[in-house]
Amino acid sequence: MTRLDTVIERLKAQRSCLNAAAEMLRGRAGHILELGLGNGRTYDHLRHLFPVQDIYVFDREVASHPDCRPDEAHLFLGMMPDTLFTAADRLGPNAKLVHADIGYGDAAATARNVAALGPVIPTLMVSGGLAICDQSLDGISGLTPVPLPADVAPGRYYIFRRD
Amino acid sequence: MTRLDTVIERLKAQRSCLNAAAEMLRGRAGHILELGLGNGRTYDHLRHLFPVQDIYVFDREVASHPDCRPDEAHLFLGMMPDTLFTAADRLGPNAKLVHADIGYGDAAATARNVAALGPVIPTLMVSGGLAICDQSLDGISGLTPVPLPADVAPGRYYIFRRD
Repeated sequence: MTRLDTVIERLKAQRSCLNAAAEMLRGRAGHILELGLGNGRTYDHLRHLFPVQDIYVFDREVASHPDCRPDEAHLFLGMMPDTLFTAADRLGPNAKLVHADIGYGDAAATARNVAALGPVIPTLMVSGGLAICDQSLDGISGLTPVPLPADVAPGRYYIFRRD
Repeated sequence: MTRLDTVIERLKAQRSCLNAAAEMLRGRAGHILELGLGNGRTYDHLRHLFPVQDIYVFDREVASHPDCRPDEAHLFLGMMPDTLFTAADRLGPNAKLVHADIGYGDAAATARNVAALGPVIPTLMVSGGLAICDQSLDGISGLTPVPLPADVAPGRYYIFRRD
């Protein structure tokens, strides 16, 4: 499996998990948190799936396509987890969905990022809300794994429910 | 169709075209040119498809995964089309495959890039060689469109044959 194969599988798994979450969360109140705007592709997908909900985005800077940018009121610019703590204060534990694409190419850096951000994620979420992540959040207090959609290979992407 | 949908379709189309080209070019002599290294995903796929051939890479800088980097002898660093002219001198018209992912988010910048690079591409290619491109190279002297693989939607990716 080449890196081209891997990214295609990863993006398909991400999309399947987000689509499944939208079904599971239909009719629930709560806003959406997108950890990492990047070029705005996933943000674009989220606003299509959740056209009415507030979507708050976290990143160090805005480097997305010009047409995939949240307004300032929905943007937390700076280093995570600092901005996550700020959001926990301002928004409370009211997110029904958190999407966190927080892996790096480097495994050690990824582990440090998961250790820094993972425990903060449930403090932002409403009970019954879902966290979709490219990394396992297993063992983080307040989160329980949810079975993946049938077309997502185990370990490719992850879904957790806030207890 | 969201930007997430679009990138998945584009990467799948890119992979299908490269895989089809490897079949069509089986047994032919010639090296491979990769215009744009980026994070090295496509380079990784190309070296899997063409394990014996020389793969020469063109980019302004090396920003790929550490395990997806060509050695210096296979790297043309600098602005295209300058480096393409250099390669035409050094390598001659001996590429059996050129992969060119040369579009930007901005349509006008993409058009300028295609106008600058497109006409140089056939000067690097062996007769019967293939150019796989994310942009149409229609109308460029020396290149004729090739039918796409069945799973690639028209306009998603392009294949041209050197006359």
